[in-house]
Amino acid sequence: MANDYKTSKGQVFDRDTFESWNKRKNFYWQSFEPYGATKGLFDYGIAEPLEYEILNIWRDHFVRSEKMISLKTSMLTPYKVLKTSGHVDKFADFMCKDPKSGEILRTDHLIKDVIETRLKGDREARGEKVEEVDDPKKKKKASKVAKTAVKLDDAVIKEYEHLLATLDDCQQEDFANIIKKHDIRNPTTGNEVEPPVPVNLMFQTEIGASGKEPAFLRPETAQAQFLAFPKLVEMTGGRLPFASACIGYSFRNELSPRSGLLRVREFLMAEIEHFVDPEGGKKHPKFSRVRDIKLPLLARDVQQAGGSTPTEMTVGEAVDKKVIDNETLGYFLVRIMQFMQKIGIDMSKLRFRQHMENEMAHYAADCWDCELLNSYGWTECVGCADRSAFDLSVHQKATGVNLQIQETLPEPIKSTEWVAQLNKKNSGPRFKKEVGKVQSALDSLSQELREKLSITLKDEGKVEVDVPEMGKVELGNDLVKFEQETTTRTTREFIPNVIEPSFGIGRILYSLLEHVWWTREGDAARAVMSFKPSVAPTKVLVVPLQKDSRLTPTVQALEERLDEEAISYELDQSGVSIGKRYSRNDEAGIPFGITVDYESLEDNSFTLRDRDTTKQVRASLDDIVDAIHKMIKGKESWADVQKRLPVVEAKEEDK
Amino acid sequence: MANDYKTSKGQVFDRDTFESWNKRKNFYWQSFEPYGATKGLFDYGIAEPLEYEILNIWRDHFVRSEKMISLKTSMLTPYKVLKTSGHVDKFADFMCKDPKSGEILRTDHLIKDVIETRLKGDREARGEKVEEVDDPKKKKKASKVAKTAVKLDDAVIKEYEHLLATLDDCQQEDFANIIKKHDIRNPTTGNEVEPPVPVNLMFQTEIGASGKEPAFLRPETAQAQFLAFPKLVEMTGGRLPFASACIGYSFRNELSPRSGLLRVREFLMAEIEHFVDPEGGKKHPKFSRVRDIKLPLLARDVQQAGGSTPTEMTVGEAVDKKVIDNETLGYFLVRIMQFMQKIGIDMSKLRFRQHMENEMAHYAADCWDCELLNSYGWTECVGCADRSAFDLSVHQKATGVNLQIQETLPEPIKSTEWVAQLNKKNSGPRFKKEVGKVQSALDSLSQELREKLSITLKDEGKVEVDVPEMGKVELGNDLVKFEQETTTRTTREFIPNVIEPSFGIGRILYSLLEHVWWTREGDAARAVMSFKPSVAPTKVLVVPLQKDSRLTPTVQALEERLDEEAISYELDQSGVSIGKRYSRNDEAGIPFGITVDYESLEDNSFTLRDRDTTKQVRASLDDIVDAIHKMIKGKESWADVQKRLPVVEAKEEDK
Repeated sequence: MANDYKTSKGQVFDRDTFESWNKRKNFYWQSFEPYGATKGLFDYGIAEPLEYEILNIWRDHFVRSEKMISLKTSMLTPYKVLKTSGHVDKFADFMCKDPKSGEILRTDHLIKDVIETRLKGDREARGEKVEEVDDPKKKKKASKVAKTAVKLDDAVIKEYEHLLATLDDCQQEDFANIIKKHDIRNPTTGNEVEPPVPVNLMFQTEIGASGKEPAFLRPETAQAQFLAFPKLVEMTGGRLPFASACIGYSFRNELSPRSGLLRVREFLMAEIEHFVDPEGGKKHPKFSRVRDIKLPLLARDVQQAGGSTPTEMTVGEAVDKKVIDNETLGYFLVRIMQFMQKIGIDMSKLRFRQHMENEMAHYAADCWDCELLNSYGWTECVGCADRSAFDLSVHQKATGVNLQIQETLPEPIKSTEWVAQLNKKNSGPRFKKEVGKVQSALDSLSQELREKLSITLKDEGKVEVDVPEMGKVELGNDLVKFEQETTTRTTREFIPNVIEPSFGIGRILYSLLEHVWWTREGDAARAVMSFKPSVAPTKVLVVPLQKDSRLTPTVQALEERLDEEAISYELDQSGVSIGKRYSRNDEAGIPFGITVDYESLEDNSFTLRDRDTTKQVRASLDDIVDAIHKMIKGKESWADVQKRLPVVEAKEEDK
Repeated sequence: MANDYKTSKGQVFDRDTFESWNKRKNFYWQSFEPYGATKGLFDYGIAEPLEYEILNIWRDHFVRSEKMISLKTSMLTPYKVLKTSGHVDKFADFMCKDPKSGEILRTDHLIKDVIETRLKGDREARGEKVEEVDDPKKKKKASKVAKTAVKLDDAVIKEYEHLLATLDDCQQEDFANIIKKHDIRNPTTGNEVEPPVPVNLMFQTEIGASGKEPAFLRPETAQAQFLAFPKLVEMTGGRLPFASACIGYSFRNELSPRSGLLRVREFLMAEIEHFVDPEGGKKHPKFSRVRDIKLPLLARDVQQAGGSTPTEMTVGEAVDKKVIDNETLGYFLVRIMQFMQKIGIDMSKLRFRQHMENEMAHYAADCWDCELLNSYGWTECVGCADRSAFDLSVHQKATGVNLQIQETLPEPIKSTEWVAQLNKKNSGPRFKKEVGKVQSALDSLSQELREKLSITLKDEGKVEVDVPEMGKVELGNDLVKFEQETTTRTTREFIPNVIEPSFGIGRILYSLLEHVWWTREGDAARAVMSFKPSVAPTKVLVVPLQKDSRLTPTVQALEERLDEEAISYELDQSGVSIGKRYSRNDEAGIPFGITVDYESLEDNSFTLRDRDTTKQVRASLDDIVDAIHKMIKGKESWADVQKRLPVVEAKEEDK
């Protein structure tokens, strides 16, 4: 999969080239480099303003446009909250210890690495070409593999392949069996490893100095949003549906972080908790607006049959056919796709994959991941789950705080029920301390049985009831009474269900970097970052034609104008050729370049250059500023501007 | 101080009324309320979009406008980084343990509480009125105090007052002496407390599962910015001055959090590290633009003389007179003040207070706090310190990574120096292992002495030199040579100094809430939040005149238009009177209201209401949208709009 990954221009994507681009441009890097860098932690350089623009679009697309209540909640979270939510017990990975070296290995990674190495060795032994070995780095890797070149039986190969495919579903015992059966050892030492044990992935700390308040860094923002539910009800008047949204950091103490920005220990999430009435099919008021929009859906049954190609289907059809469980879930899948499109994700590298039954939490009704394709393969970037009423229910139970919605019924509902009631005066002396047990037994009788017993009591003057711990108890007319009671309900109380679109911002940002990255024809080292103007970290590059103090006043006036217009820009007045300067600019993804030349001095006109096409137009400063504003807002494209304003010959030959 | 605090309208500020406003409107609340709430941790409701707008202005005002490099850095920080920075050893508060109850008390709070109670008791005993006891809550407090009503000697009172005034400067030993001398005990138990010990205030955790990587949640964003220094040099070409900026969370494990949002355990900071050449007086290229702007300065010497009234002085004069140490520091004080003004801080409640010598870190050259007045008193909201070269120096020393700037000198510098050099051939056999000591002694001679010795050597054929551990050593022509050497330096290497403006966003936000909060005349329960349109969490309230389905299509069309324009709005179509709805709106601080009435159906005109004046204008939808955009951007005020568009009679009598 990863080897087939291509850029938007159809070029083979080489991750080493991509990484050396990042090293040159400082979009992001591992944190604390001078101290040897810490795995799984990253600092953002140019990626920071990029993230800011992505979040601005997210806020506008979801929070403002959908009238969500934006929350900020604490990262430090008390033990009891995460005990109730299940994270203390279940948020864990399995690890194996190498008892001799002390090394701690993530069990699934360990097994995968060892088995994959054996399969590669087998292919080598069979004389198959294992890898492209064009560059020396890879040659080195390949020669390491060659040392383990051992041919395997066909049956073993099949078993290994099956094992790799089902590794995600393994539990503790399965892992232990695999390690034993296939003699999985620490590949770096050759030592046997200890059996796998679960290790909780939350960072633990302590609030205050008393030693009494253990706490964790939250693994998700969701729990704090559920605990803010009473506030949300106050703020919305409790009229469903309503939603909260939270952009915030979560933490996961990965045992062995890999895959760069895709698996990190500290990460930004943007999570929505959309609260909906569980009755009435979870309809969404705006569903009719999106009904005809097509989604690339990889449904559960297709995956079960071994398929991996998504089907294009309108969300209306998908909900009608129950491919997607309900309107609200479908509505959000569309909105997620539209968001991805807005920030510039390549739509041919996006799909929605439904969770398999065993992938979902036991309480989830349905769950779809928005996956983006990058050089690591299809990557879960947004989870969109129907969490049912699970979280609110467990927190209500643990705290006694009412987390229900009280709804006035459109019409009061009358109902008639059989009530079985002990006679207080007589039953006290008769049963003493056990009176409660008897009443409980009566309360647990079905309506049918109560009716039957009322007839028996009338006919025979007594009934027999099974009471736990007491056996059969005889009750006469003096002790019990069966009556029909009519009650009227005017309100309905219920715990709402939650649809949760949960965005991993770092993964989306990384995928976007790969999606917009390509290289100019004929020069694989010259990268271009085709960010949309709206998300580009900086909007304009100002380039004086050459180092000449005569140009300075015009350059300064241009700078002042851009500052007034709040357009972010960089000034490149280094002595290198204009072609080189534009080339450096393209690598930073700045969409527009303004050249200040000798004509500018005379008539205050400038050339405006488009990063992707390298085409230029010439116009007055007012027209150029206007065009830039419109392109940043998405109201015009470069093609529109090129039609409106006079095109001039690009002067980049000197590169 | 706190009791004198007034609203912007000159009304006495009552914190209970303010807090009940917040409880009603849900701007913020203590985190994890259903689990009993956790002290020092807060969730933001309406304060979240408010914070977002404040940060947007901060970014535009500093990062974009000053061309700073925006960074995002990790909160999880390895032990060794914070060991080098000094936080492991010095980021601590003193605490005393009550050995019987196990309670842990912050020493300065403990002393303050006990002494203040005694002083109050004395005033009670002397028959003075201690507190206003209008409301039952306060009456209860007062009666508690009454129990301890004991008259004190005048000398004791003086000593207590001095003690309270100097408490901030106390060290461990001072605290211990005070506790002993004044018999300070745990006020809730009456028990003696153990002597004060320092408790580190960082939250500790562990990265990975090996137990080998202790880590902390960072106490400031600054350290990670210093460690990104090599990247900043790459990104800027190393041309000073340059600056990085980071908006991010820091943590402080307060022993006993107090004062609401002002002292919390998890808080957002916005920190700038501005790197500057230590030579040449730390000039700032844009200083001339701000030179004539006046600042309210409370300088060190005024404080030492017991003064607390700031002096208005232009920043130019302040730098010239060395009240402010240098231009760069002065420039940032102006920019900080301008930022505060932009977000709507009351300028009469802002001052810059210079740190006293003993307040500053030992390495700091100068430090000014921007303090905002709120009902808790003058509160440090921004620190602006000159950290000199301290941080980069210690990290360079600890890691061996070069954190210097290499500057090409405008002209090579030639220098001629006397060099004293041992003759290698002869000095080896003569001094054996001690040859190094002799050369070191020569190297430490002054230029003058070398010149003098060269003459002596020429005249007498030998010289005498003091060598540590060896005493006087005689050196002849065969052993030593004194020569003049000329060297040429083309570069200069140095560690830059750092000016650090560091913003506590939560404190600024809280002060802003108090600054914009006031109550309508005649109705102390009816609050108004006078946010500037640019920072207001929501911009527009849409109010249909009454519940009438005939208005619905026009309301929907209006909503669509506002969505298109990306103007955030709320719709209030509850059945209550229009006056009540506006009143609720004013408490949320929405600056503009659009009323949809029956005229709107006919001519698509609407009334636009201003929150602060309650005045209304009537105009076409286009004109209204245009006016709102201009007022949000700060290009027009309500007064301007009222002049342009026809004013109509307000219809709020029915409130």
